[in-house]
Amino acid sequence: MTQLTELNTPAALVDTARMQRNIALMQTRMNDLKVAFRPHVKTTKCLPIAKAQIEAGARGITVSTLKEAEQFFAAGITDILYAVGMAAPKLRQAAALIQKGCALKIIADSAEAASAIADYASQNDVAFEVLIEIDTDGHRSGVQPESEDLISIGRILAQAGALQGVMTHAGASYALSTPAALQAMAEQERSRCVRAAQRLREAGFICPVVSVGSTPTALNALQLDGVTEVRAGVYVFFDLVMRNVGVCHEDDIALSVLTTVIGHQAEKGWAIVDAGWMAMSRDRGTQKQSHDFGYGQVCDVNCTPLPGYVMDSANQEHGIIARMGEMDHNMTQTLPVGTLLRIMPNHACATAAQFPEYQAVQGDQVLATWPRFYGW
Amino acid sequence: MTQLTELNTPAALVDTARMQRNIALMQTRMNDLKVAFRPHVKTTKCLPIAKAQIEAGARGITVSTLKEAEQFFAAGITDILYAVGMAAPKLRQAAALIQKGCALKIIADSAEAASAIADYASQNDVAFEVLIEIDTDGHRSGVQPESEDLISIGRILAQAGALQGVMTHAGASYALSTPAALQAMAEQERSRCVRAAQRLREAGFICPVVSVGSTPTALNALQLDGVTEVRAGVYVFFDLVMRNVGVCHEDDIALSVLTTVIGHQAEKGWAIVDAGWMAMSRDRGTQKQSHDFGYGQVCDVNCTPLPGYVMDSANQEHGIIARMGEMDHNMTQTLPVGTLLRIMPNHACATAAQFPEYQAVQGDQVLATWPRFYGW
Repeated sequence: MTQLTELNTPAALVDTARMQRNIALMQTRMNDLKVAFRPHVKTTKCLPIAKAQIEAGARGITVSTLKEAEQFFAAGITDILYAVGMAAPKLRQAAALIQKGCALKIIADSAEAASAIADYASQNDVAFEVLIEIDTDGHRSGVQPESEDLISIGRILAQAGALQGVMTHAGASYALSTPAALQAMAEQERSRCVRAAQRLREAGFICPVVSVGSTPTALNALQLDGVTEVRAGVYVFFDLVMRNVGVCHEDDIALSVLTTVIGHQAEKGWAIVDAGWMAMSRDRGTQKQSHDFGYGQVCDVNCTPLPGYVMDSANQEHGIIARMGEMDHNMTQTLPVGTLLRIMPNHACATAAQFPEYQAVQGDQVLATWPRFYGW
Repeated sequence: MTQLTELNTPAALVDTARMQRNIALMQTRMNDLKVAFRPHVKTTKCLPIAKAQIEAGARGITVSTLKEAEQFFAAGITDILYAVGMAAPKLRQAAALIQKGCALKIIADSAEAASAIADYASQNDVAFEVLIEIDTDGHRSGVQPESEDLISIGRILAQAGALQGVMTHAGASYALSTPAALQAMAEQERSRCVRAAQRLREAGFICPVVSVGSTPTALNALQLDGVTEVRAGVYVFFDLVMRNVGVCHEDDIALSVLTTVIGHQAEKGWAIVDAGWMAMSRDRGTQKQSHDFGYGQVCDVNCTPLPGYVMDSANQEHGIIARMGEMDHNMTQTLPVGTLLRIMPNHACATAAQFPEYQAVQGDQVLATWPRFYGW
């Protein structure tokens, strides 16, 4: 078996024990809340990980691109929600999946999109299942739960026999950091989405599905009455942004980037490593949070954090490691040339996307290489 | 032939006329300055583009990873500089390339790295060609031109028969924005690197290669006496960061992301598109420059900028388009659902890296699909 220390650097490592613990944590919580769980696979884009989520009890998956839908469907996963507003030119691609037997669900948040779906369905004899996207937090897409538009969209879809329910994503939860605020946001996400479903039902439409979720709200909801399923993605790896939001600890973070010290600027207290932004991504998600980790938290090869040491700046294939606060005047001794380090990412979805594959590790052993999809 | 308007979105478009103009501009300049030009292919990681650079007169290429070296060598390009400080565990991979006939050059900026190279060379009977990396601007790696370390490193490499010269990259030029400052930085990069070569020669070592460069300094150097070759990468596409540095105009930018409007938040003046940070990258390189373009400048489908419209924020597969300054209260009419847009990137190297392939376009026609490499 390959040792961690034999890998080429940079490499994306998945700590399989932490990942399985994260999967179990979320699934247990969803079971306790009596809702179905539909993980968002955009974080990992990796079949062995999606299979682990399904084995733990997930029902179906969420995807962010139709390419993901195609790849996971080809691998045998049939119940798929494409959680980006449907654009008319993509309907042919979606219809092809449905015609092959994929139970694909799509979303819409405007009368134009709903009409385009209804028209395509009648002209091409394809049965779409559509969820109306609800805006419960003002952060991105969706129709307001109290709007007239909601009923108009519902009518277009119901008349086409395509209305399946409502869905929302409280992405604004990422900006919070206290349990009280997160609980309130989870309740806002739940209540506004349930209210949208209620209004559609009162207007005479059937609305069986009420789908909500983000990692922070999923982990903080006190009750989910009226909700049928929850979606979350980043929880499977967690990251430093989630650590600052307060929904994980550093030792829950399952993704890290293995890198080698290749040089120093001793008088500046810098070590230079062979992982730059091409490996970490340009995501600076902790920049405006309570604890800024630069481009990532530096850990030793066993993934134990070195407190205060972060990737302070990054070029394409160079990372600059420094100690925050008091400069390390002894960096050539602290982290000599050749030292292997692991860098925890700000944002797991962004860092993972920089790699064609993960190294699945247990302790200092590499268990397997797991490929991931990318592109559109 | 495929029309631009038939492409799936998001897609990475290369305007081939602009790209060829950028290639000719740089090569003509290098010819006039009487130096060899060695383009950095980390920007594009794309064989047809590297071949166009070589056809225009480039001599060899620069790479940022050994995987790039392997891929380009397999395609027939043999003169390759790997411009990231060599780490001992990568020597075997470098030696394998050399043993297959690749004229690979590697770099070192410490006695440890130089000794590791010399030891490996003698133990494995492989002839490395090494450039010493010089720090001419304080921004990242390299040894000081006036340091004792320079001579120590030179001695180790010369004794091993491996010393080929010196190289530097004035990455600090990216933070400048006036011709006078850029000219001064170009002269600093040149003079300090030439000085390092002079000191090595005075110490009795041969030092034939003096390699300098960055896109801003290459385009602003008034003379390059003592320099034998220049390296630059991003000039082939240019981008909004380079526009703010003052080395290109918006209509020189050859890379853009094609995207579709999928929805609105009309009361906020937002249009939502199907390109988010997964397509644009998380690079916010214009954030601290004179003109902040958010996640990119919005253009119509012909790549004509819509002044004031930028991608204001981005989620993984959603971009939020807004007008800076005065909100567009009529966004549903300005950019209706289904509108095709092209987004110019902040940083071409980062945006290009998000895509498995480019669509090479001329006007509204797609001439070819060009694959790119990624990973390590």
